[in-house]
Amino acid sequence: MKIILVGASGTIGKAIEQELKERHEVIRVGRNSGDLQADITDVASIRSLFEKVGSFDALISAAGKVHFGALAEMGEAEFAVGLQNKLMGQVNLVLIGREFANDGASFTLTSGVLSHDPIRYGASASMVNGAIDAFVRSAALEMPRGMRINSVSPTVIEEALPSYGPYFRGYKAVPAADAALAYAKSAEGAQTGQTYHVG
Amino acid sequence: MKIILVGASGTIGKAIEQELKERHEVIRVGRNSGDLQADITDVASIRSLFEKVGSFDALISAAGKVHFGALAEMGEAEFAVGLQNKLMGQVNLVLIGREFANDGASFTLTSGVLSHDPIRYGASASMVNGAIDAFVRSAALEMPRGMRINSVSPTVIEEALPSYGPYFRGYKAVPAADAALAYAKSAEGAQTGQTYHVG
Repeated sequence: MKIILVGASGTIGKAIEQELKERHEVIRVGRNSGDLQADITDVASIRSLFEKVGSFDALISAAGKVHFGALAEMGEAEFAVGLQNKLMGQVNLVLIGREFANDGASFTLTSGVLSHDPIRYGASASMVNGAIDAFVRSAALEMPRGMRINSVSPTVIEEALPSYGPYFRGYKAVPAADAALAYAKSAEGAQTGQTYHVG
Repeated sequence: MKIILVGASGTIGKAIEQELKERHEVIRVGRNSGDLQADITDVASIRSLFEKVGSFDALISAAGKVHFGALAEMGEAEFAVGLQNKLMGQVNLVLIGREFANDGASFTLTSGVLSHDPIRYGASASMVNGAIDAFVRSAALEMPRGMRINSVSPTVIEEALPSYGPYFRGYKAVPAADAALAYAKSAEGAQTGQTYHVG
C-alpha cells in the first residue's frame, strides 16, 4: 500500500514508520521534516500535499497540537489551538484527502486517553479527543467509495514520559511500538468507525 | 436558586423552565427573546449577559446550532458552525460565567445522542457532542470554588419529530419534559463531571 504518514517525526510517528515500512511504501510528512512538508492548520497546504502525493491507499495522522494548561488560565484562544490544530487539522486531512484517495482507502486519526480519563491541565485535550472519536464514528457512515476511517486513542507513551510523566501520574505508559500496532490494525484491517484504545 | 437558562425559547428550554420555575428564579435568555438576550458566539455578548445578571447559582444551556448535511458536501466552513456555536458558545458560557458564579454553582451544557449513536448528515453534531461530554468530564476536575459541571445528552425529542423525525428513524423519542428532568438533576443534585443520557 501507499501510505501517507502525517506527523512522521513524532514519538508515535517514528514507531508507526518502523511498523509499516517493511510491508508498505510510507510517505513521511512533517511540518518541517520528512519526505514532504505540510501545515495541517492550513487547508491550502493540505491540498498541496495531496496534489504532490497523488492517489494513495491509507492516510495515518499522528499529528496535532493542543494547549495544556490550568483551566483557570484558559479562555477561548487557548481552546482554539486544539480545535484548529489537532481537531480540524486532522479532520481536514480527511475532508480534502478523500478526493485523492483510492477506492477503499483508510484514514486513521489520533485522539487520546484524556477523552474519558481526564487529568488536570487537559481540558482542551479532552475536548479535542472526544470530538475526534465521535467524528470518526459518524463520518464512517458516509465515507465515499468504500473508504474507512478510525481513530487510535493511546494513553501516555513511554518514550514521552520525560516531558509528560508529571501530568500522567498513575497512568500505565505504553511503548510507542505498541501504539503503532493499532495504526497497522486500522490501515491493514477491515474495520471502520472504530476507536482503538491503546493502554 | 437563581438559575440562568440559555436557550429558554427552544423545545427543551421551555420544558426546563416548566420543570424549574416553581422552585427557582429562572432568568430566560434567548438570542432574540426571553428576559435577557445574548449571542453565544460572541464573547462580548456573553460577558454583557453576566454583567446584567450578576451572581447566580446555576447556569443551564439548551442552546447551540450545528450544520446538518451530507458529509460529501461538508468542508471546514460547515464544521466551523458547530464548533463556534454549540461547542465554544456553551464552553464560553462556562469560561466567562465562572467569574460571576456563586461558590458551588453548577453549569449544565447540552450535547446529544449522536456522539455515540450516529446518523447520516450528523458528522458535525457527533463531533460537537463528543467534544462537550469530554470537556465536561475534564473541566469538572478544575472548576473553582466548588463549582460543578455536567452535560445532558438527549436523544431526539418527541416535540421535534416533525422536523427531525426523518433523520432519526428507529430512535425512540423522549418528551421534552423527560429531558428537562436531567437538567434538574444536574442543577439541584450534587454530581459533577457527568453526562446524563436521556432516552
